[in-house]
Amino acid sequence: MTTDSAREMLQAAFERQSAQYVEDWKALLRFPSISAQTDHEKDCVACAEWLVGHLRGMGFEARLLRTAAKPVVSAELAGSAKGPKVLFYGHYDVQPADPLEAWTSPPFDPALRDGRMYARGAQDNKGQFLAGLKAIETLHRAGRLGCGVRVLLEGEEEYGSRGISGLLDAWPKTERYDVLMVMDTAQARTGAPTIIMGLRGIVHLTVTLSGPSHDLHSGTHGGVAPNPALGLARLLATLHRADGSIAVAGFYDGVSDPSPEEKETANAVPFDPRSYESDLGVPPVAGEKQFTPAERLGFRPSIDVNGIRSGYAGAGSKTIIPAFATAKLTARVVAGQDPPQCLDALMRHLRRNVPEGLRIEFPEQGANGPALRLPLRSVLAARAAAVLREITGREVAYLWDGASIPIVARLARVTGAEPLLAGFGRDEDRAHAPNESFSLEQFRLAYLYAGVLLSAGLPFSGR
Amino acid sequence: MTTDSAREMLQAAFERQSAQYVEDWKALLRFPSISAQTDHEKDCVACAEWLVGHLRGMGFEARLLRTAAKPVVSAELAGSAKGPKVLFYGHYDVQPADPLEAWTSPPFDPALRDGRMYARGAQDNKGQFLAGLKAIETLHRAGRLGCGVRVLLEGEEEYGSRGISGLLDAWPKTERYDVLMVMDTAQARTGAPTIIMGLRGIVHLTVTLSGPSHDLHSGTHGGVAPNPALGLARLLATLHRADGSIAVAGFYDGVSDPSPEEKETANAVPFDPRSYESDLGVPPVAGEKQFTPAERLGFRPSIDVNGIRSGYAGAGSKTIIPAFATAKLTARVVAGQDPPQCLDALMRHLRRNVPEGLRIEFPEQGANGPALRLPLRSVLAARAAAVLREITGREVAYLWDGASIPIVARLARVTGAEPLLAGFGRDEDRAHAPNESFSLEQFRLAYLYAGVLLSAGLPFSGR
Repeated sequence: MTTDSAREMLQAAFERQSAQYVEDWKALLRFPSISAQTDHEKDCVACAEWLVGHLRGMGFEARLLRTAAKPVVSAELAGSAKGPKVLFYGHYDVQPADPLEAWTSPPFDPALRDGRMYARGAQDNKGQFLAGLKAIETLHRAGRLGCGVRVLLEGEEEYGSRGISGLLDAWPKTERYDVLMVMDTAQARTGAPTIIMGLRGIVHLTVTLSGPSHDLHSGTHGGVAPNPALGLARLLATLHRADGSIAVAGFYDGVSDPSPEEKETANAVPFDPRSYESDLGVPPVAGEKQFTPAERLGFRPSIDVNGIRSGYAGAGSKTIIPAFATAKLTARVVAGQDPPQCLDALMRHLRRNVPEGLRIEFPEQGANGPALRLPLRSVLAARAAAVLREITGREVAYLWDGASIPIVARLARVTGAEPLLAGFGRDEDRAHAPNESFSLEQFRLAYLYAGVLLSAGLPFSGR
Repeated sequence: MTTDSAREMLQAAFERQSAQYVEDWKALLRFPSISAQTDHEKDCVACAEWLVGHLRGMGFEARLLRTAAKPVVSAELAGSAKGPKVLFYGHYDVQPADPLEAWTSPPFDPALRDGRMYARGAQDNKGQFLAGLKAIETLHRAGRLGCGVRVLLEGEEEYGSRGISGLLDAWPKTERYDVLMVMDTAQARTGAPTIIMGLRGIVHLTVTLSGPSHDLHSGTHGGVAPNPALGLARLLATLHRADGSIAVAGFYDGVSDPSPEEKETANAVPFDPRSYESDLGVPPVAGEKQFTPAERLGFRPSIDVNGIRSGYAGAGSKTIIPAFATAKLTARVVAGQDPPQCLDALMRHLRRNVPEGLRIEFPEQGANGPALRLPLRSVLAARAAAVLREITGREVAYLWDGASIPIVARLARVTGAEPLLAGFGRDEDRAHAPNESFSLEQFRLAYLYAGVLLSAGLPFSGR
């Protein structure tokens, strides 16, 4: 059985079954499984339970693994005993959907328009992992699954991966895998099929500056009482230097520079600043000027403000000195950096720079997402690249992605598996933003990729 | 008839009628007459209509003056033809009430607890002007009103005074007054009865920085795409120098320094930084260090941020680079400064300092509130001081207030009247903040002050 015929078989199966896939996809997207918001806790559990039922219908032995946080969906297919053992990772949780008013159709009422599915999670990650699972189902029903598969779908990828972390704490030493397959990443902006050679890690921190015990009249107190909104602005302005570098002492400690070959490969993906600006509305001018955008995303850490709230910002004016101001920060860290150390450095810096008269607190924080950097010369990656070339007819891009899938590095270490990250996300999908979508065409590519790849015994580096 | 017996008469009347005053006050406070929010437009009109009816019941000839914005309530009492003509100014609009969850009882469901009335507007300005009007009613019914009175209650003091401004544009040249009486100010923090010798003017500006066309994934774009939340922080951080002074070029142009006597009088009011901090939760450390707090509030301009909104700041994390960030600013200006020039200087400064890759807009702005500085040696002020001493038994403080009543300077100029500003607000009233209140005792003092003052012919400087 050649992979060519596997591709043909999968293409035919997709055509036959795509209408049903769309219905299943919609059903999955209807769950508002927002992990970060406690009022969606039940929706997360309901989504996980639906997945268990759905996976059973697809032929998997599936069950819900209870954890200290959201449950993890686990499912297995024996497949070929000769082939490698593949651990397929995905996440059923999604980002918050606000601002709701910015959505053309409601985030949890999936709508297929012009060949694109619109819903929160359409791409990240429900669309991508469902395409992969449907391909595995097809191979299994055709008796052509070339490996053993275990599926783990967690419910807190967007919120610190607490549940699955607990499972890994107690992971049996004998439960080893060869390949950790992840379909939760994006393509290069050129549209080339893409293998991810690295991910940045993540640290998150909420910072609150408190001032007056209540909002003060800005006339009666302006120029005398310290203003938390102004203070927070000044504090956040200390995080970077004028040249775009991070001004937090100790933050760069341990940063591992890329090899010349990694640097060359990262920069081989064409990058056009004008098309970046026309696609996204901003020129690619943040960060350290002495690095290319590909280098900044792949090999350099960053600190961003995800949101700020203080005082009154509605219509008209409310002449107050607000009682407090809050900002949410995320830092992306790279190979060699220790996330808890980065978080410490960040908190130390913020404490040291609190404007006079204000008090600082950190109501939320997290630092359990280390970075991942994969070996450039891996037989597994070479095999995946061959499959991607076959199904798209295009050359493959190797990308060190700026995003994070915090649990991947740990999952690989604990299970002994070599990570393989290839996905089909695109900027136009607006992952994490209003009007998230995923095209049926990208869904189809994800399906073909997973199907062709897993139809024959996978080579792997066996590290 | 001596003023002493006027005081006794008023005290007795207050005791007899205070229960009814409380009911009327509550009725007035039930209108959510928030001028800044368009969805409260009808509530503002309803409040004005209620006031017209209520003033008629009190013996006034009252009517609603339609304007291009919210209506103005106008009411007249002939009183003594011999005495001076007094223009009594107040405002029936209130500040927005959010954050609603911070209120112990709902802002428009007035509650009297432990001798304090809790509601938005309880003090600012409904409580204060109602006390004054009730005193005028009492004098009128007793045939002891020593002056002619016209009342103007506007509905946009908290939102640029647009309606009354239009009336002043067409004000008849013959419609002149001797005294402009305003009961919309606070006492010195010592609790001494207080006459306001100056008010700061106000300029307001909403600034929005736009970046990406939609929220971007902070991993995929962090360190490459410019962040509007971080950019706004950097931009706001440029407004002041490290020494607390304003760094906006041209902003201080024209600032009129106080005379040695004004400075000495302003500093004569005791100021204890420790009690400021224990009352308000912050030390008085903002602004220019080389000036005392009294000087900073009275004679120095200030710039404050009233609120900031950007991205996501709810529970958990949302890892985005927000599409935009908005801040609302107010600047307080002092005598000699030209508000439109200050606004221009501020906008020029902000435009010049926009961080790379972001775009700036000013969706709202206003600069029609000049500052007011009154002559220290005024016979009218001396008369008011005598009344205040009589009803409180305490020495009077003269205060250059940091707050603004934008229309007062213009009202005085157009009508030829000398402004007299004395009020009974206190920090603990939390004007503009959640849980605004006004004590029945301060309401009583306001009533006695207005009553005793207007019971006999007022001397005035006749400028």
